[in-house]
Amino acid sequence: MSKTIAVNAGSSTLKFKLFDMPSEDVVAEGTIERIGEEMGHAKIKYGDGQKHEEERAFADHGIAVKYLLDQLINLDIVKSYDEITAVGHRVVAGGEYFKDSAVINDDVIAKIDSLAEYAPLHDPAELVGIKEFRKVLPNAFAVAVFDTSFHVDMPKMNALYSVPYEWYEKYGARKYGAHGTSHRYVATRAAEMLGKPLKDLKLITMHIGAGASITAVKGGKSYDTSMGFSPLAGITMATRSGDVDPSLVTFIQEKLGKTSSEMIDILNHESGIKGISGISPDMRDILAAADKGDKRAQLTLDIYVNRIVRYVGAYIAEMGGADAIVFTAGVGENSVPIRKMVTDKLAYFGIKIDQEKNNCHGVERDLSTPDAKIKTLLIPTNEELMIVRDIERLKKQSK
Amino acid sequence: MSKTIAVNAGSSTLKFKLFDMPSEDVVAEGTIERIGEEMGHAKIKYGDGQKHEEERAFADHGIAVKYLLDQLINLDIVKSYDEITAVGHRVVAGGEYFKDSAVINDDVIAKIDSLAEYAPLHDPAELVGIKEFRKVLPNAFAVAVFDTSFHVDMPKMNALYSVPYEWYEKYGARKYGAHGTSHRYVATRAAEMLGKPLKDLKLITMHIGAGASITAVKGGKSYDTSMGFSPLAGITMATRSGDVDPSLVTFIQEKLGKTSSEMIDILNHESGIKGISGISPDMRDILAAADKGDKRAQLTLDIYVNRIVRYVGAYIAEMGGADAIVFTAGVGENSVPIRKMVTDKLAYFGIKIDQEKNNCHGVERDLSTPDAKIKTLLIPTNEELMIVRDIERLKKQSK
Repeated sequence: MSKTIAVNAGSSTLKFKLFDMPSEDVVAEGTIERIGEEMGHAKIKYGDGQKHEEERAFADHGIAVKYLLDQLINLDIVKSYDEITAVGHRVVAGGEYFKDSAVINDDVIAKIDSLAEYAPLHDPAELVGIKEFRKVLPNAFAVAVFDTSFHVDMPKMNALYSVPYEWYEKYGARKYGAHGTSHRYVATRAAEMLGKPLKDLKLITMHIGAGASITAVKGGKSYDTSMGFSPLAGITMATRSGDVDPSLVTFIQEKLGKTSSEMIDILNHESGIKGISGISPDMRDILAAADKGDKRAQLTLDIYVNRIVRYVGAYIAEMGGADAIVFTAGVGENSVPIRKMVTDKLAYFGIKIDQEKNNCHGVERDLSTPDAKIKTLLIPTNEELMIVRDIERLKKQSK
Repeated sequence: MSKTIAVNAGSSTLKFKLFDMPSEDVVAEGTIERIGEEMGHAKIKYGDGQKHEEERAFADHGIAVKYLLDQLINLDIVKSYDEITAVGHRVVAGGEYFKDSAVINDDVIAKIDSLAEYAPLHDPAELVGIKEFRKVLPNAFAVAVFDTSFHVDMPKMNALYSVPYEWYEKYGARKYGAHGTSHRYVATRAAEMLGKPLKDLKLITMHIGAGASITAVKGGKSYDTSMGFSPLAGITMATRSGDVDPSLVTFIQEKLGKTSSEMIDILNHESGIKGISGISPDMRDILAAADKGDKRAQLTLDIYVNRIVRYVGAYIAEMGGADAIVFTAGVGENSVPIRKMVTDKLAYFGIKIDQEKNNCHGVERDLSTPDAKIKTLLIPTNEELMIVRDIERLKKQSK
């Protein structure tokens, strides 16, 4: 019995999925939340619908990783760690260096460490996970899968900002994007659903969750993406602002007497849906409030939808057309009204969905009407499966 | 003989145009440059091709305005100031208060003064002009024409950022845009050229000069615009960056040990075409260098064109189509290759120009091929004429 585990460490979370190989069946999955807070929460699903839940403090990621590894044995999910022959770690920032997923060794660890300044909230947590798993599973085939590598080779004209060029040369000032594993996965699935080679397609993949990004995928490669140097830029998110004029940030900074990093913090955690609406970062709450006639909620909704529409238009222009747009991630997979509003506003391009087909959650489905010129696909993302497949691919390459 | 003067005070410049009324013939025009620098330059054209040029220092805008008024008499352009019965002043920032041009009185002056924080480089200079002209021409009908008023009533979903809502309520954090007088003028002319009422049209007006902005004009009103809270945002400009992820600004700020306002200064004056190319802020130099195979110049060109294309696509999406796109201002009116590159990349939308027709500079012309689905118009801007017409309109209203 050979198993592969995919590990995803966020700034205050740790998620995993354990796969039976080569069947790719998920035999266990779980989440540890609120790491570093006074009280955390662990939830593990395994076996035939069995569940383990626990409220307890996880002081740091190291403790969370050890807890997870302990539970795998305690809950009898694995008899011995030897069963887990491969580990994949999601890493947020791979800079320009990691153009593909990488087999983990000391050099790779050192390189990820050196890139931590590009994702100060994520990369250190991910390094903790990588090192702990290495201790416990020293013989497992370990791979790092980067959120950014899908975007690294996008055309320079889209990656670079119109700022002094030496900022790029000296400090890596460019667009790195994010959610690369998700965009890559849904683009691959879209090609399969459309029955066409990915290399011949122009796709616009919309990963719309708490964090959200839209990518223009041309010939299977990222051509442009809405997130920027950091995951702050692009469309409106749960608590992140998306695009903002830097002059406004400085103007408000002086008014409030804040530091630059305090401002960036507000733009990351107090803005987006939460900031405009004053209600909640959760789109479901906004939809409910707008339904009851709340004007700020309606405005939030209008802004949210319009920012998506704006990027889809921009990417149709940049690629000179599109074969399909793809909805994925939390809101994209589950919000029937948001999918309706976005596609309604894109009718000019021949984007048209069947409202019956749209009335669903988290299933893989072509939502388009037969006469739609650009197809609309719903594809639940599966970053962990993409990680597992990257591991298999790198295994073969390293033989 | 009744004359109207249109005055445009920039941060270090003063421009004017003197019109014979009601014929709207230009009887004199001129520019004073490098105000506040060690050596300035004044140039006035008048009469039958006569020209007055002078190198001298202009310590401040007050001195420049007095010099201009003196020359009007000295050069015999007017016999007496009484001939000038109306004055129009361009003002950059009108905030949310000025939704239209305004007849100047003490209240209006006080209000412009209170809005100066939104345009700290421009509004104070413009106030100096307003006050000096008032002293010398106390009986003239004086009007302030705001760059922002065309954009004030754009839909809130386009005007607001996804930031804490109270920033809008307390500090006026929103998109103000710029070049409103120019966008308004070319949109009006476009409707005349297309022979359709402006209220029925969807236009994308591209004011592409050293400063540059693109506006979605729906039914004669600004629907969205690429500049933001300040004129820094949007497409790539001569020395301004256009859109940048605020996180990048903070990241570089720490690397360079600069203050926030020093960073904004770099984004305004050392970025854009100048920053990427490292060659020049002038598009003509970039085109020449790219022609000789300079790779950075080619990259600059690609970025420049692509940012325009991106906004056109976004605005076609937002408005659900477009009847025409309009090129205006320095680059838009004069650069045959930029117009070609932009329209080539927009072919998917049925934008197509006749290269013979495109081979021209600064003339009013429909560049489209007969089969173009969205027309491409070239319309030299004339902000001063728009100012003069605003004056006439307000004169009638105030009677």
